[in-house]
Order: sequence, then C-alpha cells, then structure tokens
Amino acid sequence: MSITKKALSFDIGGTKTIYAIIDEFGNFITEKTKIPTPDSAGQILEMFKNISCEHADDIDAVTISTAGAVNIDNTKVCSSTPNLPSGYPDLNFKEITDKKVFVENDANCAVWAEHACGAAKGCKNVLMITLGTGIGGGAISNGKLIRGYTGAALEVGSVKIFADRRQKCTCGRYDCWESYASGTGLKNIAAAMAKTEEEFKNSLLKDNSEFSTFDIINGVDAGDKFSLKVFNQWQDYIFTGLVGLVNIFNPEIVVISGGMGKFADAVQLEEKINHESVVTPVKIKHARTGNDAGMIGAAILGLRESGL
Amino acid sequence: MSITKKALSFDIGGTKTIYAIIDEFGNFITEKTKIPTPDSAGQILEMFKNISCEHADDIDAVTISTAGAVNIDNTKVCSSTPNLPSGYPDLNFKEITDKKVFVENDANCAVWAEHACGAAKGCKNVLMITLGTGIGGGAISNGKLIRGYTGAALEVGSVKIFADRRQKCTCGRYDCWESYASGTGLKNIAAAMAKTEEEFKNSLLKDNSEFSTFDIINGVDAGDKFSLKVFNQWQDYIFTGLVGLVNIFNPEIVVISGGMGKFADAVQLEEKINHESVVTPVKIKHARTGNDAGMIGAAILGLRESGL
Repeated sequence: MSITKKALSFDIGGTKTIYAIIDEFGNFITEKTKIPTPDSAGQILEMFKNISCEHADDIDAVTISTAGAVNIDNTKVCSSTPNLPSGYPDLNFKEITDKKVFVENDANCAVWAEHACGAAKGCKNVLMITLGTGIGGGAISNGKLIRGYTGAALEVGSVKIFADRRQKCTCGRYDCWESYASGTGLKNIAAAMAKTEEEFKNSLLKDNSEFSTFDIINGVDAGDKFSLKVFNQWQDYIFTGLVGLVNIFNPEIVVISGGMGKFADAVQLEEKINHESVVTPVKIKHARTGNDAGMIGAAILGLRESGL
Repeated sequence: MSITKKALSFDIGGTKTIYAIIDEFGNFITEKTKIPTPDSAGQILEMFKNISCEHADDIDAVTISTAGAVNIDNTKVCSSTPNLPSGYPDLNFKEITDKKVFVENDANCAVWAEHACGAAKGCKNVLMITLGTGIGGGAISNGKLIRGYTGAALEVGSVKIFADRRQKCTCGRYDCWESYASGTGLKNIAAAMAKTEEEFKNSLLKDNSEFSTFDIINGVDAGDKFSLKVFNQWQDYIFTGLVGLVNIFNPEIVVISGGMGKFADAVQLEEKINHESVVTPVKIKHARTGNDAGMIGAAILGLRESGL
C-alpha cells in the first residue's frame, strides 16, 4: 500500500448511492459507481459491507457522506432522515468493516470539499449554502468545521426571513428561508406573482397553471418579463438570508452550490451583499466540486482531519 | 510572582473605562477601578501606558476588551468604533507595555467569560446574544471562538427579520434584528402600537408622547395591558431572530446578556424555541458575569487561550 491514504467513499441519497475510492487529497483512484439505494436499513448496511469487503485490500478507511445530523464522534446518524428508510439512523456503521469508518453530514462534507480542493481552496473561513428543493449549509471557522453541540449546525434553510407568519413552509413552520429562496421558493414566488403582476398576462408562462423551476429559468433565458420579475424577487430573498449569514460568519468566501444554486447570480449577490453587510467584503462563488462534493469531502475529512 | 498568571484587564467603553487585575481563572486580584474614557486616541494610549506601568510588577499581560472588530492576531482594532474617539482604531496597543498585550472584541470576551466561569461553564458550543441599545453576539464552536475572517463575526444585530424593507434601522439599513428586538426595538414597538392598539387608551402610558424602555418595563411590572402587549411583541421579535441563530449554531446553551437582556423571559423563549427549532433542544439562560464579563473574558483569553 502506498503512503498516500485512500478511502472507499460513499454518498448515500434517497434514490441512489454513489461510491469511489478517493485519496486523502481528493483525487479519484477509481471511477464512480452509481447504484440504487436499497429499500431497507438492513439492506443498506449489507450494501456497505459487501462493497467495503470487495475493496478492503486497497483502502485505509470507509467514509460516508449522508443526509442527517451526525454525532460528534462521526460514527452514527442522530437525526431523522426523511428520504431514507426507517431504521437508517439506528445503523451501527462500525459493523461495515474492520477498517476505520467515518460518517459525516453531506453539507459538512461538501463545504470541506470546496475548502480542500474547490472554490474556497486556501480559505480558512468559509460559508456554503446549498440551494435545491430546500436550503442547506455548511461553515468552516478558522479551518474547523462548525458542527454544533449535536452535529446539527447550519440548518440555515429554517432561518426565518419574515417575523409575521406570512407563508407556511412545507415543514409546517412559517417563513423559513427555504420557502422563499430555494427551488420551492422560486415556484412559490411565481404562483403568487401570477395573481398580482400585470406582466403575467403577456408572459410565456401565461397558460401555466403550475410552474416548474425549469419553466421559470427558461423564461428568464428567453427574456420573458414575468419570469425575470419572479427571478429578481428570488434573488432578493436569497440576498436577505445570505446577508444575515455573512454578518454572522464574516467569511472570506461564500460558496453557492446545489441544483438551484447554479442559477443564482453570484456577481449580483456579491455586489449587493458587500454594499449592505457590516463586515469585511466577501467573495461569492459557485461551487466547483459538483455532485462529487460529498464523497470527496468525506474522504478528505475521514483520512486527514480526524486522525483516522 | 506566583505560578498563576495575572492580567491587568481593561474594558474600554465610550464614556468610562474599567480595569482590574484578574487571574487566568477569572478571579479578581484587585478591586475594579472606573475612570472616564479620555477624549482623544492619544490620551487613551497614555492612559493604558500609565496604568500598565504602575502595575507592571504584578502582571503577566495587559488585556483589553474593546468595541469593534479586532484583527486575527489580537493586536489591533480593525473596524470603526462610533463611540470612541477618531484615531482609536489606529492605536498600536503593543506600545502600551513591554508585557504581552492582548486585545479582543467585547462580545467575544463576554461569551468567553460566560463559557469559562458563567452561565455556560462546561459547555463547548455556546451562543451569546447581548440585548442593549443594539444587539451584539458571540459564539463558541467546539471550544473555540468564532471570530470570522477579519474578527468581525457575530454581527447578529444586522441580521434581517423582514425581507420587504419595512422598518428603517438607525444604521440606515432596513429590518435589522436590532431595530425590532433591542431596547430601541422595544421603543419602536410601543410607538407603533400606540397608534393602532385599543389598549393604549386605558394604558398607564397613555399620556406619553415618547416611551422609554423604563416606562414599558414598569408598565409590564404594573400589569398594564398595553405594556404587556408591547413586551410580548418584543419577545416575539427576539424569538424570530434567536430561533434562526439556534438553527445555525446548534448550541448547547444560549446566554442572554446586556442591559435589556435581563428583561427578556428566558423560560418562555426556551420553550418556544425548542418547540420551533429543527435542532436539538437548547438551554437559554441569563448571563452571570454581568458588567465584568469583558474584563474577565479578556484576561482568561489573553492568559490561557492565546499562549501569551
């Protein structure tokens, strides 16, 4: 075995699980393999066991990027994980292999990947927000992950951006940032604006009874005025939450990731936030490690930062 | 000199400066002395020099708790400090003495004092909010201060709790948390509610054209319905911002400090936040180190945590 350490690194999602062997610097040693996530917790553990056994001779550790809060010892999921089978948080990941096993929350893995070899390389104070169906986040303070008391920190999607119970979130609470500034938020804005804005009558979207994020982004690309108005309001909601986070963390860089994150206008956000924040100007960049962020971050954290 | 290290520790404010010799465990070795803060930056430096010289034989370091962001080396103020004379941020604190000099932001000192020997003793993940004329904050993640890229983190007073430019803050921006949930916020709420709420007509405050925080808190103590309504709205605004911060930091404990902080109902906030947050339940307590927090925290940080 060479001196450079290697991990078999998994990214487990609700529908698919991806894995590869990745070294401690974030380099892929094997191609990625994508398989369906099994339907039961027991089968998930078996999957981890079988694949780990197969690669045992080539690795120093098994690392897992997962949804949910992970305990402080990085051994166990300790929150509910709505998209994964019941029983998943009770799994004893130590059973997977005789090698060391390292588990970390996917957003924490992703911000670490960006810090180690992505858009935030070289930066010790980093904030990442992930805009998708909801909003997630991760943060690094002076080179250390902010994990919180029980590994659940950076639940930024649940920060409120109104204080008067204006809009119900899919979680049942009111005015969560993610009900305004995620993909779901973009659709909410379009639905509300369709009822009030004059531009809707002549919009490319005028015959829609529902709006997909795809419809709206397409409309923006086509110069549709209604779609642009919706998009600008969405950017403004991203701004409102993000300027708060910048004031809270005083980061050197904000990395925006996620399926919807790629549509956010980072240049405009950077300008607006640096005009409005009370802290030192920040750089705002799109993520670079893409869909591999979880696997890469888990491998680097597990091999290098936790003394595995 | 004994083995226990001692600091001459200053807390410099806009009108007065307090100092005492404090040991590395936060114990006062001398009584506190309170003097007016000089009117010019040059005189402030002279004051530090003279007092340090006087106590030189009894101390290992000079530590200063100050308004403003402090650089990462803890040697220099690196932001504007509106309540202190112009030129203050340019002072070279190293000139004060031949001993080691340690400078830190007052909110960071205060949260460290609470962590070391106050309400958050024994807790490694702590959030403090300071409710006064404005709102400040400090946070500790896994036993380390969150200082940010340029020492300006935890500007929580500038987090927005509305996204529709509803109320102008004294800073010129809109919808800063501190314009709703500080002492200034309490007065803003009373002024607005006096125009709309029926209870004002029979209130103890009905003849007031302006409201001091003292009037409102007095009214609450006297069972005045209007004052209670104002106070409940104030608590609700504290809640809105604080539940976001709890979701962001996942702290073990929130410490509430500051002149207005003592009026906040920590029991009610704890119950409401633990009902609403998406992270592990948190304890919410009032600060215990009071007005000495800055001096104590500066001394402990300067003597023990920075390798002085």
